[in-house]
Amino acid sequence: MSDEKLTLTPVSRRAVLSLPLAVAAGELLAPQLAWAADDPLPSWNDSRSRTAILDFVGRVTKEGGSDFVQIDDRVAVFDNDGTLWSEQPAYFQIFFALARVKQLYPDHPEWENMEPYKSAISGDLKTLAASGEKGIATLVMASHAGMTTEEFAQIVVDWITTAKHPRFNRLFTELVYQPMLELLALLRANGFKTYIVSGGGIEFMRPWTEKIYGIPPEQVIGSSIKTRFEMKDGKPVLRRLPEIDFIDDGPGKPVGIYKFVGRRPIFAAGNSDGDLEMLQWVTGGKGPRFGMLVHHTDEKREWAYDRQSAVGKLDKALDAAKDAKWTLVDMKWDWQRIYPFEG
Amino acid sequence: MSDEKLTLTPVSRRAVLSLPLAVAAGELLAPQLAWAADDPLPSWNDSRSRTAILDFVGRVTKEGGSDFVQIDDRVAVFDNDGTLWSEQPAYFQIFFALARVKQLYPDHPEWENMEPYKSAISGDLKTLAASGEKGIATLVMASHAGMTTEEFAQIVVDWITTAKHPRFNRLFTELVYQPMLELLALLRANGFKTYIVSGGGIEFMRPWTEKIYGIPPEQVIGSSIKTRFEMKDGKPVLRRLPEIDFIDDGPGKPVGIYKFVGRRPIFAAGNSDGDLEMLQWVTGGKGPRFGMLVHHTDEKREWAYDRQSAVGKLDKALDAAKDAKWTLVDMKWDWQRIYPFEG
Repeated sequence: MSDEKLTLTPVSRRAVLSLPLAVAAGELLAPQLAWAADDPLPSWNDSRSRTAILDFVGRVTKEGGSDFVQIDDRVAVFDNDGTLWSEQPAYFQIFFALARVKQLYPDHPEWENMEPYKSAISGDLKTLAASGEKGIATLVMASHAGMTTEEFAQIVVDWITTAKHPRFNRLFTELVYQPMLELLALLRANGFKTYIVSGGGIEFMRPWTEKIYGIPPEQVIGSSIKTRFEMKDGKPVLRRLPEIDFIDDGPGKPVGIYKFVGRRPIFAAGNSDGDLEMLQWVTGGKGPRFGMLVHHTDEKREWAYDRQSAVGKLDKALDAAKDAKWTLVDMKWDWQRIYPFEG
Repeated sequence: MSDEKLTLTPVSRRAVLSLPLAVAAGELLAPQLAWAADDPLPSWNDSRSRTAILDFVGRVTKEGGSDFVQIDDRVAVFDNDGTLWSEQPAYFQIFFALARVKQLYPDHPEWENMEPYKSAISGDLKTLAASGEKGIATLVMASHAGMTTEEFAQIVVDWITTAKHPRFNRLFTELVYQPMLELLALLRANGFKTYIVSGGGIEFMRPWTEKIYGIPPEQVIGSSIKTRFEMKDGKPVLRRLPEIDFIDDGPGKPVGIYKFVGRRPIFAAGNSDGDLEMLQWVTGGKGPRFGMLVHHTDEKREWAYDRQSAVGKLDKALDAAKDAKWTLVDMKWDWQRIYPFEG
């Protein structure tokens, strides 16, 4: 990576940004690649975070350099909620679960006065939040299990291509972070294999991550419920069961990564305490390592929250970041643009 | 794929085989690639099995053809024991477990008169087999758990690069099937992503599958024990626990594939009843599908066994193969050469 690229002036970056943009969810990737030749991170301000990323990528890809990393070991892992797309006022998968519960309600009149269904049906997010993890798990089981894997994938696609976010009135997949899309593309252009490692449901993400992030289903790791092989009308299928298989959060993240990848990655990005152990494990390995935390500091363009937030609480990991020398991305100051649809 | 390649005469194949071979475990892949230009399957006799494979690969890769399959969906799954390498007189991982138990015995004097340890230490495979799955599981827990994932990988490498098979007095990794190495290479050359889906331990395979089969760790699916994130001397590690996480066998195989890959493959190869549901699920999807069973019929060069065998029993799947039109590979007649070291 040449110095010229590292010190690209804001003016030329703005010039790049004035190019017409395709902002439809499915067309996010093409324009980035066009920019890449000019500036790989056009939506990042010329900050320490940006310099740290470019420096790291430059070092691990420099053949003969002391920090060179073989291409097979260039594995990068990204949390999803709050790291690649927004997570307020509730994890987007909660909106999906609520929509499903409403859809199923006609067949379940008993839900009318039963929590957490009652709050789900009335859209009362606060009471729902008060029902805690157990309440959410109950809703997920009711809404995510029972059908075959192929039926569920179709249900997800139907929802994700039509449902709108309450604040922005846009598809949830439009609320992905443009700077992170550019970072994913930069890493891949430099031989990295990019993975999602999310506390969210693995099969809730897989049907759309390739189109939106360029990350294929086999590179998506997440929480899961069990499935069972069975014959349905003489055809072999996998049925989704209302039973937790794996919780890919907190100390579960390094466990999930090792299970799926079989290697310790060299790059990890997260935004909450649920990413703490993943960052510790990734950056605790030998050789060059990169840890990143996205800090939500922009209440105007996105949201501002950290230590006190019910969603995406960032407290212990924020304390750990300093000693561990993780890069703390300040959304407000580091990101010139947040969402692809911003002009 | 041209007709000329499909009907390559045995003479020219033999001519290719007379080339000097590098048979060291780590050098298996290079010579195949050299052959590929000439004949992609030089160790396969000109049989129906060989024709069926080449026909399938030709159809799914022919752009504009009615059976064309997009490159992302070209996923092929292979059982390991008895499909890619031998599995007699016992699964090779059993030999590894026995060696580990012997190594640990000095610290466990209580094992002297306790089964299954006693049989393991004396190398009494028959009594051990009689202890059934429970006995084997006990040995695996005693020998595969307790250490960190990185320590375990090193233990596997130390064993696999030195231990010898009792019949052939060769490294276990030399007992891989040359025709299957060629098939893996052929599929990959045609855009397939090749996976191992084994009842064996995932972390027992991952340290060596890339070198031997060209299959990287993230494309190895297998049975697993749980791991736990922890700090060891201030360093973050994953510790292996004596607790089953997932059994990747029988109906567990499609479950494991969907969990790791998130797609239904279009090609599956196995050799025993443990592969039945995997073959049913893979070949039960829409569009062109290929199912293959390796039938062990060569008692001279390898072993001959099927319906009555304690290891790799092939009974129900053999019955199912006919109706399902799976390709039954007859080792004795279809394979000109079995192991890479054969002259």
